[in-house]
Amino acid sequence: MAQKPSIPKGTRDFSPTEVARRNYIIQIIKKHFEVYGFQPIETPSFENSETLLGKYGDEGDRLIFKILNSGDFLKQADYLQEFRAKVSKSIHLINNEILDIVKKNGFTKKDYYKDGFTETLFFGLKKKFGEHHRYLKNDTILRSLLDFNFLRIHDFGQDSSKIERFIDELYKKERSGEFAPKISEKALRYDLTVPFARYVVMHQNEIDFPFKRYQIQPVWRADRPQKGRFREFYQCDADVVGSDSLLQEVELIQLYDAVFTDLKLTGTTIKLNNRKILSGIAEVIGAKHLLIDFTVALDKLDKIGEEKVKEEMLNKGISEIAIEKASPLFAMNGDAAEQLAQLKSLLADSEVGMSGISELEEIISTIKELGLKSASLQLDVTLARGLNYYTGAIFEVSAPEGVSMGSIGGGGRYDDLTGIFGLKDVSGIGISFGLDRIYLVLEELGLFPERLDKSIDVLCINFGEKESLSSLKLVGKLRESGIKAEVYPSAAKMQKQMKYANNRKVPYVVLIGERELLNQEFVVKTMATGEQETYSLKNPGNFIDTL
Amino acid sequence: MAQKPSIPKGTRDFSPTEVARRNYIIQIIKKHFEVYGFQPIETPSFENSETLLGKYGDEGDRLIFKILNSGDFLKQADYLQEFRAKVSKSIHLINNEILDIVKKNGFTKKDYYKDGFTETLFFGLKKKFGEHHRYLKNDTILRSLLDFNFLRIHDFGQDSSKIERFIDELYKKERSGEFAPKISEKALRYDLTVPFARYVVMHQNEIDFPFKRYQIQPVWRADRPQKGRFREFYQCDADVVGSDSLLQEVELIQLYDAVFTDLKLTGTTIKLNNRKILSGIAEVIGAKHLLIDFTVALDKLDKIGEEKVKEEMLNKGISEIAIEKASPLFAMNGDAAEQLAQLKSLLADSEVGMSGISELEEIISTIKELGLKSASLQLDVTLARGLNYYTGAIFEVSAPEGVSMGSIGGGGRYDDLTGIFGLKDVSGIGISFGLDRIYLVLEELGLFPERLDKSIDVLCINFGEKESLSSLKLVGKLRESGIKAEVYPSAAKMQKQMKYANNRKVPYVVLIGERELLNQEFVVKTMATGEQETYSLKNPGNFIDTL
Repeated sequence: MAQKPSIPKGTRDFSPTEVARRNYIIQIIKKHFEVYGFQPIETPSFENSETLLGKYGDEGDRLIFKILNSGDFLKQADYLQEFRAKVSKSIHLINNEILDIVKKNGFTKKDYYKDGFTETLFFGLKKKFGEHHRYLKNDTILRSLLDFNFLRIHDFGQDSSKIERFIDELYKKERSGEFAPKISEKALRYDLTVPFARYVVMHQNEIDFPFKRYQIQPVWRADRPQKGRFREFYQCDADVVGSDSLLQEVELIQLYDAVFTDLKLTGTTIKLNNRKILSGIAEVIGAKHLLIDFTVALDKLDKIGEEKVKEEMLNKGISEIAIEKASPLFAMNGDAAEQLAQLKSLLADSEVGMSGISELEEIISTIKELGLKSASLQLDVTLARGLNYYTGAIFEVSAPEGVSMGSIGGGGRYDDLTGIFGLKDVSGIGISFGLDRIYLVLEELGLFPERLDKSIDVLCINFGEKESLSSLKLVGKLRESGIKAEVYPSAAKMQKQMKYANNRKVPYVVLIGERELLNQEFVVKTMATGEQETYSLKNPGNFIDTL
Repeated sequence: MAQKPSIPKGTRDFSPTEVARRNYIIQIIKKHFEVYGFQPIETPSFENSETLLGKYGDEGDRLIFKILNSGDFLKQADYLQEFRAKVSKSIHLINNEILDIVKKNGFTKKDYYKDGFTETLFFGLKKKFGEHHRYLKNDTILRSLLDFNFLRIHDFGQDSSKIERFIDELYKKERSGEFAPKISEKALRYDLTVPFARYVVMHQNEIDFPFKRYQIQPVWRADRPQKGRFREFYQCDADVVGSDSLLQEVELIQLYDAVFTDLKLTGTTIKLNNRKILSGIAEVIGAKHLLIDFTVALDKLDKIGEEKVKEEMLNKGISEIAIEKASPLFAMNGDAAEQLAQLKSLLADSEVGMSGISELEEIISTIKELGLKSASLQLDVTLARGLNYYTGAIFEVSAPEGVSMGSIGGGGRYDDLTGIFGLKDVSGIGISFGLDRIYLVLEELGLFPERLDKSIDVLCINFGEKESLSSLKLVGKLRESGIKAEVYPSAAKMQKQMKYANNRKVPYVVLIGERELLNQEFVVKTMATGEQETYSLKNPGNFIDTL
C-alpha cells in the first residue's frame, strides 16, 4: 500500500538551490574561520543523556530529543508500576496529614482564604514529606494537592474516588518525565557548546591550548515550530578555550566583520557589552535581581522616551534613588569611546564595573586602530543575552537597518566552560552565526550570487547512439577542466531536451548532430542570447577557454 | 558534581586532522558529483517512522534508532496493560486447546517425538488462533508454546504458575516491539535511499526528470559496533531517477574512476554484473532459491578450485545436471568482452539472460571506447549484492590489490524506487562511496596530502601589547590574501609560543619585537630550515608572494 509521504513538523527538505545557497554561506563562514586560525572538529549527533541533561535548565531538558534504547528497552518498565504506588502513597500520606491538621485545629474554609495560611501549611508539609515528595517532582503539585483538599472535597470530607482520580492524573502527568531516563540513554545534541566542552575535557591531553575550534553541524530542539524556528537547524560556532587575552574579543569582532563583508551584507551592527558593566549597574541600582527589569526598560529608551522608561522602572520596584543614581545611562551619547567615558563616572565606585570599562576600552580602541570593513561596533549597555552564562564580553550582531530580523549572530566570554565536566579554570569565548536568519536576510536583500541557481554549465543534446558517444567524449574533456557538463540521457524530442536545459538554467547547450559528427565539430548555443558558435571536436580547448 | 565525560558506543569525535582528511575525501567526491551534473539535496535527520519502518526488513527495523515523542509520551502507556491481557488470553486459549487435543486423542510423550506430529498441531493451532496469535508476533513463540506444553508440564498436567511465568516472559519479550510505535513517531534516517525516494515523491512537481541528485549526510544504525562499523556514519550517494538509459551506467562507472583517480587511489577494480545475468543463471541451474548458494560457491573458484566448488554446490542441493549445464561459468577467461562471449552460449536459451548480456555489452564497449583513467572494469557474474533490490546493473568497487578491505563503493539499478510512496514506474540507478573505508585505505597507503596536517600558515609571536598591535595589522593583510594566520594571544614565554607553533605544524613564524617595530619590519622564520628573512611592514606583499 502506497503511503502519502510527509516529513516531521519543524524539519525541512532542502532543494538543490537551497543547498547551494546554504553552502555558499557556510563556505564563506568556514573560510574565515580557517583564515583566523580556527580548526574544525565534529562531535556525534547524539550524546549520552547525562552529558546533555541539566545543562540547559528545565525548559532545555524538555526540548532535548531523546532516543529510545534499542533492543528490549522496556526491561525497566516495571518501574512504572512502582512509581504509581509511590505517587499514591505520597498523596495519601499528605492527604491524611492535611485532614489531621484541619481536624485538630478546627480550620474552616475561611481560614483557607487567609493570607499566608496555605503557604505555612505548604512549607510544613514539604518539610515533613520531603522524601516521598521527590516523586512528585515540583512544588506546583503539592500546592495543587493542598488546593484540591481544601476546595474540592467539601467540608474536608474524604472522597477516595476523587483522590484516586487525582492520583491517576498526577501519575500520568509525571510518569513520562520519570520514565524517560529508564528507556532512553542517548539524546540528540541541543547545541554545539556543551558537546565542545565535553570534547575539550575528553581530549585535553591531545589539545594544544589555546584551542581555537570551529564546528558547523546540525542541532535539534523539540521546540514549537514557527517562522524561522526549526526542530533541526545548523549552528556555526567558533570558540577559543584556554586564553583570557582580550585579543580574542578583538579577533572575534574582526571575524564577524570579515564574514558579513564577504557575504556582501554591509551595514551590520556588532553590539558589544560586558557582563561586568551589568554587574556594576546592578551595584549602582542596589539590586541584582532587578537588573533584567532595568535593562529591559532601558532598552526601550529610543522608542518610548525617558519618562516612560522611568515609569516602567518604578513599576518594577526600582527605587527613585536608584533611578536617579543611574541617570547618566539615560543621557549616554556619542560613539563607543565617548559613551565609555560617560559610564566611567557612573561606575566609578564599582570595582567590577571599572574592570568592565577597562576591558571595553581596550577592545574598542584596538578595533578603532585596526578598522572594520563594513560593520560598525556599537556599545550597548542594555545587551544582556545569556546574562547568567557570560562572564565578560557579550556580542550580538544585527542585520542592516531596514531588515526586520532578530540578531544574526551572538556570543561572549564564559569563564568556566569545562567545569561541568571536571576541567576547572579554563576560560572560553565564542561566537555563533545564525545560518537560517542570515539566509533569510540575504534572500530578502537579493544578495545570493546568481551563479548559485545554475547547477550545470553545459548540456549536450542527445541525437542518438553514435552522436552521443562523441558528446560523451567531449563532456569527458569538459569535466576534466572542472566544467559541469552532461549528455541528455536519451535521444528524446528536441523540445523535451531544451525544456530540461531551460529548467536547469544551463547557459550553454552543445549540439552534435549527424552533420557535426561528419565534420568533426560541435555547435555551442549560448542560451541567454541564442547565438551559436562552431568549434572543432579535436580542439575543445577553444570553447573551454571562453568559459 | 563533575562528570567524567564519554560518548555513546559506536560514535566518534573527529579531531581537526580527521575532519580535514574526511573533508578532503568529501570535497573530491562532491566536485566530481557536480562536474557530472548531479545536484545536492538534503533531507531531515529524522523522518516519520512510517517512512522508514518496513523498508529494510525485520533486521533493519530493529536497527533503526527511534526518537521518543516529546511531552507526555506515555499518554498511550495503558496499552501495555491491555497488551499483557491479550498475550495472557492467547496463551490460555492455546494451552487449553492443546490439553483438549491431548486428552481427546490420548496422546503420549512418545507421540510428541514422532516426525511431523508437532508440525501438524502447529498449523492447526495457527489457523485456529490466528487472530489472537498476531499479538504473539511470530511462529517461534507458538512453537515454543507447543514445546512448553508438551515437555515442561509433565504428563500434560496444568501448572498455572509456570504458565503465568511463561506468559510474563513472552510479554516482556514482545512488549518493547509492540510499545515502541506508541511512544515514538520519528526515527533517525537509516540510509539515504529511502529518504531520497520520499523526497522525489513529495517534490515530484518541482523536479525536472531525469533528476540527478547527490546527497552526503550521516545515517544511523543501532548495529553492534566493531572495527570499521559505526552507529553514525556518512553516506555519499549519487542517484539518477527517471531515466532507463544505459548512459547512466556508463557515466557512473566513469564517475567512480574519476573520483578514485583524483584521490590518487589508482588500481581500483570496478566489478560489474547484471541482475538479469543472475536470473539467467538461475534458469539454467533450474532453481531460483539456490542462486545465492550457487554464486557464493562460484565466487570461491580462485581460492579453492573447481572440484571443491562443485562439492559445495552439490552439498547445497544443486543437481549434477545443473552444475554440468553451468560449467562454462567455471572456465570463463579473458577480459570482460571475451567473458561475455562465453556467457552468451551458456544463456542462449534464457531471454532475460540474453537481455542482461546485451546491456553489459553496450556498457562495456562504450567504456572501452571512452577509456578509464586508473580503474579497471571487471565482469563478475558472482557479484550479487542486494540481490533482491537491484533489477539491472550491479556495481562494486574493490580497493587496489594488497589492501585488505571490503568494497569501498557499490550500487546498481532498481526499477521501482519510488513505488513504495506511490509514484510508479520510475527507474533509478545509483552508486555510493564508503567514506570510512576509503579513509582507512588512503591512510594505509599514505595518500592523504601532507598539507592537511597543517592547520595554520603563519603564527606571529606575541612580544607585548604594542608589538602585537603591529602583528594584528600584518595578520589582517595576510588573512585578506586567504592566508591562515594568527597572533599568539598573550606575551607568553618564547619557548611556550614556539612549542605551540611546533604542535600546530606552522610552517612560518613571524617575529615583530621591539627592534623590528622600530625599523618597521618583520622577521619570517621558516620552521623547516630555521632560515630567517626580513621584510618591510609597509610591504608585506613581498612575503605573501613567497607563500
